[in-house]
Amino acid sequence: MTRWERATSTPLTIAALVFLAAFAAPILWWPTPPEVVAVCSVLALLTWAAFLIDYLVRLKLAPVKRTFVRRHLMDLLAVALPMLRSLRLLRVVTILTLLDRRARLRGRVITHLVGATVLLGFCASLAVLSAERSSPEANIITFGDAVWWALSTMATVGYGDRYPVTAAGRWVGAGLMIGGVAILGTVTATISSWLIQHLDTSNEVDRLQAENAELKRRLEG
Amino acid sequence: MTRWERATSTPLTIAALVFLAAFAAPILWWPTPPEVVAVCSVLALLTWAAFLIDYLVRLKLAPVKRTFVRRHLMDLLAVALPMLRSLRLLRVVTILTLLDRRARLRGRVITHLVGATVLLGFCASLAVLSAERSSPEANIITFGDAVWWALSTMATVGYGDRYPVTAAGRWVGAGLMIGGVAILGTVTATISSWLIQHLDTSNEVDRLQAENAELKRRLEG
Amino acid sequence: MTRWERATSTPLTIAALVFLAAFAAPILWWPTPPEVVAVCSVLALLTWAAFLIDYLVRLKLAPVKRTFVRRHLMDLLAVALPMLRSLRLLRVVTILTLLDRRARLRGRVITHLVGATVLLGFCASLAVLSAERSSPEANIITFGDAVWWALSTMATVGYGDRYPVTAAGRWVGAGLMIGGVAILGTVTATISSWLIQHLDTSNEVDRLQAENAELKRRLEG
Amino acid sequence: MTRWERATSTPLTIAALVFLAAFAAPILWWPTPPEVVAVCSVLALLTWAAFLIDYLVRLKLAPVKRTFVRRHLMDLLAVALPMLRSLRLLRVVTILTLLDRRARLRGRVITHLVGATVLLGFCASLAVLSAERSSPEANIITFGDAVWWALSTMATVGYGDRYPVTAAGRWVGAGLMIGGVAILGTVTATISSWLIQHLDTSNEVDRLQAENAELKRRLEG
Repeated sequence: MTRWERATSTPLTIAALVFLAAFAAPILWWPTPPEVVAVCSVLALLTWAAFLIDYLVRLKLAPVKRTFVRRHLMDLLAVALPMLRSLRLLRVVTILTLLDRRARLRGRVITHLVGATVLLGFCASLAVLSAERSSPEANIITFGDAVWWALSTMATVGYGDRYPVTAAGRWVGAGLMIGGVAILGTVTATISSWLIQHLDTSNEVDRLQAENAELKRRLEG
Repeated sequence: MTRWERATSTPLTIAALVFLAAFAAPILWWPTPPEVVAVCSVLALLTWAAFLIDYLVRLKLAPVKRTFVRRHLMDLLAVALPMLRSLRLLRVVTILTLLDRRARLRGRVITHLVGATVLLGFCASLAVLSAERSSPEANIITFGDAVWWALSTMATVGYGDRYPVTAAGRWVGAGLMIGGVAILGTVTATISSWLIQHLDTSNEVDRLQAENAELKRRLEG
Repeated sequence: MTRWERATSTPLTIAALVFLAAFAAPILWWPTPPEVVAVCSVLALLTWAAFLIDYLVRLKLAPVKRTFVRRHLMDLLAVALPMLRSLRLLRVVTILTLLDRRARLRGRVITHLVGATVLLGFCASLAVLSAERSSPEANIITFGDAVWWALSTMATVGYGDRYPVTAAGRWVGAGLMIGGVAILGTVTATISSWLIQHLDTSNEVDRLQAENAELKRRLEG
Repeated sequence: MTRWERATSTPLTIAALVFLAAFAAPILWWPTPPEVVAVCSVLALLTWAAFLIDYLVRLKLAPVKRTFVRRHLMDLLAVALPMLRSLRLLRVVTILTLLDRRARLRGRVITHLVGATVLLGFCASLAVLSAERSSPEANIITFGDAVWWALSTMATVGYGDRYPVTAAGRWVGAGLMIGGVAILGTVTATISSWLIQHLDTSNEVDRLQAENAELKRRLEG
């Protein structure tokens, strides 16, 4: 981690949280008063500027520009494409990891998993509500509906009592399904790895170790 | 296990079962006669008192209070928050383990899995029925509907012929989905670990062992 | 395998297939002519007698009766409880294994998986159709509907365009969901075990083997 | 890879892409002008001829005919059965692998996974739309509906707002479900294998290696 990255870590995380608030406020506060819309637009612009400046500085500091661009493609997308600006929120998940740096790999996976699930579910709920609310045939019309829909989609239950009907809402749904599949896969994988690690296989390793120890004793004796 | 824990193990398990009965009776016996409501309220209060006393005694016996509180957070929640009182039922799952203490890790995982699935499904069915029954738009109106809904949710099938419509019912659904995902993940993980353990990988270990044995023979010869 | 088991293997498999045919015919041939009903009832009775005799002979030949009963609980259930008679069909899955005895563990798992999926799906389709057809509110009324419902349930998709409404149909659904979860878990586990076996972990084992080989060379040199 | 296979690799991949275009065009361009239908039929015939010739030449070049037929059963099915012609599209997935030949096993699995998911989803969307569009009770009537249905089926969410009602559409759905289950299983398996490989188990191997190294040092000293 360079000095710049250490110095900007906290401000950028705050910027990501401000961005999340500026994204959530006009959707949850409905109908939105024009002043709130204005304030949130300004805040969204400011956080975007912060991420843009950070990207440009890091690009300038990088020894090989091309390698930097290739390795930080997600950062570029998050800055360049307004549609993918939610990628900036990934920074919020990163805080959880910082709090838990001493944790082992599985601990970090679990922290990321919970953080990503909550963040993905919350953002997808907001996005689908914002997309659907204006449609006359929509059945997702309150934030409660949106959260319920997001949860039942991520768990791949999909009752079908709530579902997006607009093209924008379906894009959100597509992203949520892909995220949900990844999350479910990671849950199973984490449990699998735990089980496999604590199972009798280890007995075999123990036996090998014991044999090695005996070999060593014989060499010494 | 301290002497206190050995002594209270059976009474507390009985208390958990009584609590389950007192929770189930007024929901299954509908409309509930006022006397049944009264008896069940008293029983629920008594079992709560039993768990509270047990918590306080164990807290008093603990050498370092802070460590005890941190390690038994779930017990604290189960005693302090009436909403999370179903956590006390986890004790019922524990009995299954006691019956099967000699079992190996995978055996214990399977026992817990079956116990947790049945208990979670049963409690969620009761809770959702209790939440939905009073709503005019509800489609979960009999215990059969509730069990069918719980099962199709835990298996992540989610037909959508039955689904909660009240906020309370959706909270139950959210808990059930999270539980269902964990259960499904554990099922897959258990099968995975079994397969991986019995597969040809072990051949590699066998070969290593054979080589070690040969090394040993040469050292001795 | 005792002599009796070798001698009865083929006849009992045929009996299981006859049982399957006698189970399927009156459901697929609808409305069933009374003669077909009569013939199928007789065939079902005969196959039951065959399984009963086989169980009793094996029980008599067993050195320790109690151990035999405990180890062949499923056979006992399949013979004693008419409701669980479909367990006898498991014998049909066994043939697939016989054809493929030289296969390694994973091969046998795949064979069982495909056999069990087809058999489970087919039997559940028949059973749900038989249960639902007579109900006025049923939406599963043709064999095509039943197969489509069974497939979308086993894959845990659960569109909800077709679903059982009778108690009997829901019991079939419950069994199918549990079977579907087990099948899905096994699919994932089989792929997992394959991947893990062929991955770079083996490189580590290779390195260990190489080191052992070097040790051996040094001892000899 | 024989000389013939190297020489035909690029042309056959182009043929598969042309086949895909000739399959997609009349479905997406609706109602299809008769000239487009005619052109697409001719293109489909030509690509079929290309695959047939390739199969026959490879059969002729093969030293043992029977082994070749058994090992390339999928190629035979793709050429012989018009219904299974979509198997020819698998060649398109193969390109992705060629681009990434240096990748390790897990890299190749991920490439195949993404390629197969996109191709399967796209083809199933086209096929279901083509099957359903003409039915009066159909609810999948635009390409957007079809893609949304395919995605929610592959993720096993299955809202049930869109589902096939014709026999042909349900066959497509059956194939998509089986493919979806395989894809989900592979996703979980890939994450599992990554986690297991990077977990503390490796510590055990490290310890064994360290012990071996010490043994070696002692032998040398």
